[in-house]
Amino acid sequence: MDQLFVTPWFWWFAPAASVLALVFAGYFHHDMFKSPAGNEDMQRIAGYVREGAMAYIRRQYGVVIKVFAVLFLLLGVLAVFHIQNPFVPVAFLTGGFFSGLCGYIGMRTATSASSRTAQGCREGLNKGLKVAFRSGAVMGLVVVGFGLLDICLWYLILDRLVYTPANMAHGLHLFGMTLVEEGTTASQKLVEMTTTMITFGMGASTQALFARVGGGIYTKAADIGADLVGKVEAGIPEDDPRNPATIADNVGDNVGDVAGMGADLYESYCGSILATMALGASVGVRRDIGEAVGMVTAPMIVAGIGVLLSIFGVFLVRCKEGASQKQLLRALATGTLTSSALIVVALFGIYAAGMIPLGVVFSVVAGLVAGVIIGQSTEFFTSAEYKPTRGIAEQARMGPATTIIDGLAVGMMSAGIPVITIVLGIICAFGFADGFSNIGMGLYGIGFAAVGMLATLGITLATDAYGPIADNAGGNAEMCGLPPDVRRKTDALDSLGNTTAATGKGFAIGSAALTAMALLAAYIDEVKLWIGRLPDVAAKFGVQGETTHLEIMDFVEIYELHIMNPLLICGIFLGAMMAFVFCAMTMKAVGRAAGLMGDEVRRQFNEIEGILEGTGKPDYARCVEISTRGAQREMIVPSLLAIVVPIAGGLVLGVPGVLGLLAGGLTTGYVLANMLNNAGGAWDNAKKYIEEGAHGGKGSDAHKAGVVGDTVGDPCKDTSGPSLNILIKLMTMVSVVFTPVVVKFSPAIQEWLNIAPQILK
Amino acid sequence: MDQLFVTPWFWWFAPAASVLALVFAGYFHHDMFKSPAGNEDMQRIAGYVREGAMAYIRRQYGVVIKVFAVLFLLLGVLAVFHIQNPFVPVAFLTGGFFSGLCGYIGMRTATSASSRTAQGCREGLNKGLKVAFRSGAVMGLVVVGFGLLDICLWYLILDRLVYTPANMAHGLHLFGMTLVEEGTTASQKLVEMTTTMITFGMGASTQALFARVGGGIYTKAADIGADLVGKVEAGIPEDDPRNPATIADNVGDNVGDVAGMGADLYESYCGSILATMALGASVGVRRDIGEAVGMVTAPMIVAGIGVLLSIFGVFLVRCKEGASQKQLLRALATGTLTSSALIVVALFGIYAAGMIPLGVVFSVVAGLVAGVIIGQSTEFFTSAEYKPTRGIAEQARMGPATTIIDGLAVGMMSAGIPVITIVLGIICAFGFADGFSNIGMGLYGIGFAAVGMLATLGITLATDAYGPIADNAGGNAEMCGLPPDVRRKTDALDSLGNTTAATGKGFAIGSAALTAMALLAAYIDEVKLWIGRLPDVAAKFGVQGETTHLEIMDFVEIYELHIMNPLLICGIFLGAMMAFVFCAMTMKAVGRAAGLMGDEVRRQFNEIEGILEGTGKPDYARCVEISTRGAQREMIVPSLLAIVVPIAGGLVLGVPGVLGLLAGGLTTGYVLANMLNNAGGAWDNAKKYIEEGAHGGKGSDAHKAGVVGDTVGDPCKDTSGPSLNILIKLMTMVSVVFTPVVVKFSPAIQEWLNIAPQILK
Repeated sequence: MDQLFVTPWFWWFAPAASVLALVFAGYFHHDMFKSPAGNEDMQRIAGYVREGAMAYIRRQYGVVIKVFAVLFLLLGVLAVFHIQNPFVPVAFLTGGFFSGLCGYIGMRTATSASSRTAQGCREGLNKGLKVAFRSGAVMGLVVVGFGLLDICLWYLILDRLVYTPANMAHGLHLFGMTLVEEGTTASQKLVEMTTTMITFGMGASTQALFARVGGGIYTKAADIGADLVGKVEAGIPEDDPRNPATIADNVGDNVGDVAGMGADLYESYCGSILATMALGASVGVRRDIGEAVGMVTAPMIVAGIGVLLSIFGVFLVRCKEGASQKQLLRALATGTLTSSALIVVALFGIYAAGMIPLGVVFSVVAGLVAGVIIGQSTEFFTSAEYKPTRGIAEQARMGPATTIIDGLAVGMMSAGIPVITIVLGIICAFGFADGFSNIGMGLYGIGFAAVGMLATLGITLATDAYGPIADNAGGNAEMCGLPPDVRRKTDALDSLGNTTAATGKGFAIGSAALTAMALLAAYIDEVKLWIGRLPDVAAKFGVQGETTHLEIMDFVEIYELHIMNPLLICGIFLGAMMAFVFCAMTMKAVGRAAGLMGDEVRRQFNEIEGILEGTGKPDYARCVEISTRGAQREMIVPSLLAIVVPIAGGLVLGVPGVLGLLAGGLTTGYVLANMLNNAGGAWDNAKKYIEEGAHGGKGSDAHKAGVVGDTVGDPCKDTSGPSLNILIKLMTMVSVVFTPVVVKFSPAIQEWLNIAPQILK
Repeated sequence: MDQLFVTPWFWWFAPAASVLALVFAGYFHHDMFKSPAGNEDMQRIAGYVREGAMAYIRRQYGVVIKVFAVLFLLLGVLAVFHIQNPFVPVAFLTGGFFSGLCGYIGMRTATSASSRTAQGCREGLNKGLKVAFRSGAVMGLVVVGFGLLDICLWYLILDRLVYTPANMAHGLHLFGMTLVEEGTTASQKLVEMTTTMITFGMGASTQALFARVGGGIYTKAADIGADLVGKVEAGIPEDDPRNPATIADNVGDNVGDVAGMGADLYESYCGSILATMALGASVGVRRDIGEAVGMVTAPMIVAGIGVLLSIFGVFLVRCKEGASQKQLLRALATGTLTSSALIVVALFGIYAAGMIPLGVVFSVVAGLVAGVIIGQSTEFFTSAEYKPTRGIAEQARMGPATTIIDGLAVGMMSAGIPVITIVLGIICAFGFADGFSNIGMGLYGIGFAAVGMLATLGITLATDAYGPIADNAGGNAEMCGLPPDVRRKTDALDSLGNTTAATGKGFAIGSAALTAMALLAAYIDEVKLWIGRLPDVAAKFGVQGETTHLEIMDFVEIYELHIMNPLLICGIFLGAMMAFVFCAMTMKAVGRAAGLMGDEVRRQFNEIEGILEGTGKPDYARCVEISTRGAQREMIVPSLLAIVVPIAGGLVLGVPGVLGLLAGGLTTGYVLANMLNNAGGAWDNAKKYIEEGAHGGKGSDAHKAGVVGDTVGDPCKDTSGPSLNILIKLMTMVSVVFTPVVVKFSPAIQEWLNIAPQILK
C-alpha cells in the first residue's frame, strides 16, 4: 500500500469554486461602486466613517504585525530546534494574512456601501436592500473564497512540491531543518500534511482575536460613550450630528460587526475544514490509503460545493417593488435555506461517489439542524415577540435593578437549549458516523457536522455583514438630514438586520463549539504524531517508530487521560476560569474606554461654542482617535492571556491538563457566550419594545430602566460574548501548534514537581 | 488476612468528642436563655420574628418530608430489586433528619438570641458580642456534633451489629433483601460499609438544597420587596416598623443565613468525612487490612480532634470592656486561627500514631492554606478597603449601567484567584499524598484536604451564624426605638458579622469544591463495587467476583472514561449548563416572589390608614406568609432538577456522561458561585462606601446607582451563588446513590441508541 496516491480530479473543483467566489465578490463590489453615492453631504459623512474605519484597521494591523513577528520568530526557533515543523511559521503567517485581507476588503466595501444604501433607499426600499445585501455578500464570498483557496494552495504545494516521491524517499532538508524525513510513507505523508496545515488556523485565530476583541472594545466604547453623555446627559437623539462620538459609533459598527465577525467566521471556516481533514487522515490511514485520500479531500470538496451554492443563494435574494418587512425577511431566508437544502442533496452525491460513508452525510445533517435550532432558540430568547424579552420589559416598570436581575436570569436560562442541542448534535454526528464502535470515525463525523454547518457561510455571513451597512445607512441619512421617509426605509432594513444578527450570533458560537470539538480531536492526533518524533519522549514511554497509528487506549494509558486524573480536572477548572477572566478583562476594557470617550464628549460640549445649537462643529476625529487608542491598548492583555495560558498550563499540567483546559474552556465558554449574547440581545429588544409604546413608552420610568439594561447588555453581546468564540478556538489552535513543546518539556517539569512527595516518603 | 479487624480504641475519641460538642451546645444555649430578653416591646418583636421563622421552617419541612417520602420509596424499591443496598434508604433518612434537626435548633437559638443581644448591647458592647457569638456557637457545635455522631453511630452499627463474623460467614437476609452476603471478606466489609455510609450524605444534601434554595428565595424576596417599595418608593429607612415587610426581612436573615448556611456546611462536613473514609477503604484494602482500618477511621478521629479544638476556640473569643472594632475582629480571629493551628499539630500526632502517612498531613495543610487564601481573596474583591469595590463606587458616578457592568467584571475577575488556589491545593494535596505515583492515595489526600479545611467548622460556623443574630439585634433595636447608642453598638457587631460572612462564603464554596472532588473519586469506587455485584453487567464486561480491587486503567477501559469520549464531553457541557440554568431559576424565583411582596407592601401602604404616620398597624404576618409561600413554591423545580438530571443524564450518557456532568458542574459551578458571591458582596459594600460619604454620599446620584447595584447583587450573593454549593455536592451525591441504576440500565439504553448507526451501515 505504500504507493503515492493521485489526487482525484474532482478535488480541483474546490480551488475552482474558491476562485469563482472571489470573482463574484469582485463583481458585487464593482456593482456596488457603480451605484450612486448620494449627495455631497452624504459622501462627506461616509468619508468620515471610512477614514475612521481605515485609520482604525491600519492601527490594529500595526499592533497585530508586531505580535505576529514575535510568534513567527518563536515558531521559527522551535523549527530550528526540531520541535516544530518548518512549515508551521509560514503557515501561521498566511493564515493571519488572508484573514486580515478579508477584514480589509470587507470594511472598505461596507464603508463605501452605507451612503449608497441610503441613496438607494431614496430611490426605493428594494434598491436599498440590494445594495446593502450584495455589499454584505462581498464579505461573505471573500471570506469563503480566500479561506478555501488558502487551504487548497497549501494542500497543492505540500502534495505536489514538498512530499514528492523523490523527497519522501531521500528526505528534504533546508537550512538544517528537516522538511521531509527520509523514507516517509504515503500514510505518514497524509498525516503530516494535514496536521501541519491545521496550524495555519492559529494565524487566522490570532488575527481574529485581535479583530474581535479590539473591534468589540472599540464599538462599545464609542456606543456607550456617545449614549451616556449625548443621549442621557445632553438629551439629543442617537446618530445626531451634534454628538462628537457619532462618527466613532458608526465606525464601530463596521469595526466590530463587519471586520470582527468576518475574521471570527473565517477562522471557524478554515478550522473546521482543516480539523476534519486531519481527522480523516488519522482514520483513513488505518484502513486503506485510497480511502484516506478520499477522506482528506472530502471536506474541501464539500466546502467547494457550499461556496457554489452560496453564490447561487445570493442571486435568489430579490423581491418585488414595495415588499413588506415580512416579505423582505422571507427573501433573505429563501437564499440561506435553499443553499442549505441543496448542500444536503450534494452530500448524497459525494456519498454516491464513494468519498464519505452514508453515516457522515447524516452527521452533516445533524450539524445543520443543530445550527437552525440554536438560531431559533436565540430568536426566542431575544425577540420582543416572545415571553422572555417581554418579561424583562415588564420588570422594567419596577426599575433598573429588577430589569438587570431578570435579564441575567433570561441570559442564564437561554444557555439551556443551545447546550442540549449541541449535545444531541454531537451525539448524533458521532453516532451516525459509526462512532459508537469507532471513536476516530465518530470524531470525523463531528468534524463534518461543523463543515456542514459552515458550508453555506458565503451567504449566511452576507446576511450578517448586511446589518451594519444598513445601520450605517440610517446614521448617514440622519446626519445628512434626509427626509424622514428615507430614514424609515433604512430603519426597516436595519430592523431586518437585527433579526439576522441575533440568529447569526447563535450560529457563530454554535459553529465555534463544533469546530473546537473537532480541533480537540485533531490535537490528539498531533500529540500522537509527536510522541514518536521526539526521541526522548518515545524512549520514556517505550514506543517506537511511527506513532500515528497508536490506539486510543494506549494513548490514554500513556498520559492518563482519564477523568480521575486530577491534572485533567484542574485543567477543566482553569478552562472554566479562563472564560470568566477573559470576559472580565474585555468588559473592564469597554468600561475604561467608554469612560474616556464620555469625558471627551462632555469636554467638547463644554468647550466648543454653539455645538449643541448646531452652529459649532464637533471634533469627530478626536473621538475616533480615542476609541482607536483605547481599543488598541485594551486588547493586548486579554489576547496575550489566550495565547500564553494554554502553553504555560500545558508545561505545568502536561497533556491531560491541556485537554482539560480545552474541554473546560470550550464548555464554559460556550455556555457563558450564549448567556452574554442573549442577555444583551434581550435587553436591547426589551428597550425597543418599550420605546414602541409598551409600559409607558419613551421617556417613562420603564424606558429609563430599559436603557440601563441595554447599556449593560452592550459589552455583553458585542464585546465579551462574541470574543469567547475566538477564545475557545484560539486556545485549541495554540495548543495544537505548541504540542511538541508540551510533549517534550512537560514530563521534565512534572518530574521536578514530584520532588516534594519523594522527600516525604 | 481475612480476619475481622478490631476497631482501635482511640476511635472512641470521635463519638465522645461529638457528644461533648452537643453538651457544650446545650450549655451555651442555656447560658443565652438565662441572659435578659429585654423589655416587653423587644420581646414582642423578637416573638414575631421567631414565630415567622418557625412557621416558615415548619412549612418547609412539610414540603421536604413529601420529597423524602418519595425518594425513600424509590430507594426502597431499588433495594427490593437488589439494585441498591437495603441500608441506603434508611441512611438517606437519617442524613436528612439530623440536618433538619440542626436547622431547627439553630433557628430557635438565633431567633431567641436577637433581643437578648440587643439587650446585651444596652449593657455593653462586650456583653452583646458574647451573647451573639455564643448563640452562633450553638449552631456550629450542633452541626459538627450531630454530623460526627451520625457518622460514628452508623459506623458502629454496621461494624458491630451487621457485619459480625457470623453474618459475614453465613450471610444476613431480611424480607428477601440481602444485608450481608455469604462469605464477605474483611476488606469487602470495609468497602461496602464506607460506600453505604456515603449515601446518607444524599439525605443531608437534599435537606440542604431545600434549606439553601428556599431560604435564599425567602430572604431576598423579603429584602428586595421591602427595599423597593419601602425605601425607594415610600422613603422610609431600613428596619422601620412602619414597613410591613420588616419582620419578613428579619425572618429571612435567620432562614437564609442560619438555617441555609448550617445545612450547607453540615452536608460538606459529613460529605468530606464520608468520602475520605470510602477512599481510605479503597486504597487501604489493596495494602493491608490493618492499615485499611486505620485509613478508614482516621478521618473520623481527625474530625473529633477538630471538634474539641473548636470548643476550645469558642472559649478564646473574649475581650476587655470597651474594645475597638479592630480588637473585636482580632478576638474572633484568635479563636478560629488557634483552632486551625492546633489541628495541624494534632495531625502530626496522628501521623506519629501511624494512622496516616506524613504526606497526608501535608495534604491537610494544603487544604487549610487554600481555605485561608480563598477567604483573603474574597475579602480583597468585596471589601471597600480595596480597589475593586472602590472602582465600582467610582463607576456609580456615571449611573447604574456602569455600576452593573463594573460589578459583573469584578465578579468574573474574582473567580481567578480562587480557581488557581483550588488547583494548586488539589495538586499539592494530591502530590503530597504520594499521588503522582498512586492515584488512589492521592485522592485520599484530596479528601483529607477537605476534612482538614472543615475540621474547625464548629468555630468557623459560629462566626457565620453570629452575623444574622447581630443583624436581627439591630432590627430589634430599631423597631423598638431603643436609643441610637444601642443601635450604634449593634451596627458595630453587624459590620463585624459582614466581614466574617464574606470570608465564610468563600470558605463554604471552597470546601464544597474539595468535598465534591473527594465525592467524585468515591463515586468511582461505588461504580467499581457495582460492576461486580450486578451479574449481567459483570458478564458484559467479562469481570468476575470482587471488583473493588479493579485497577483504575481497567476501569477506564471498561467505560472509556477518557477525554476523547464525546459522551464525557457532552456531560461536561451539561454540567456547565446546569450551573447556569439552576442560577437562572433561583434568580427568577426571587424576582417573582419579590414582586408579590412589593405588591403587598404597596397595598398595605394604600389601604391601611395611618400606616405611614405610625398610627396604623402593618400586617406583618401577611408578608411573612407571602414570602413563605413564594419560597415553597419556587424551590421545587430547581431542586428537582438537581436530583433528576444526574439520573436521567446517567441513563442516557452512561458512566462517562455522569463523570463529565459532575466535573462540568463542579468546575463551572465553582467559578460561577465565586463570581456571583463576590459581585454581590462588592456591590453591597460599594453602596455602603458611598453611604459613608464617598462620591456625594447618601441621596446623591452615585448612591442611587449604588442601590441598584446592591439590589442586583442580593439574589446573586444570597440565593443563586450559595445554592450552587449544594448543587455541585447534591448532583454528586445523587450520582453516588443511583450508581447501580446507571451501571445496570445505561448500557441497554445506549445499545438502543446505537441502532441508528447500525441501520446506516
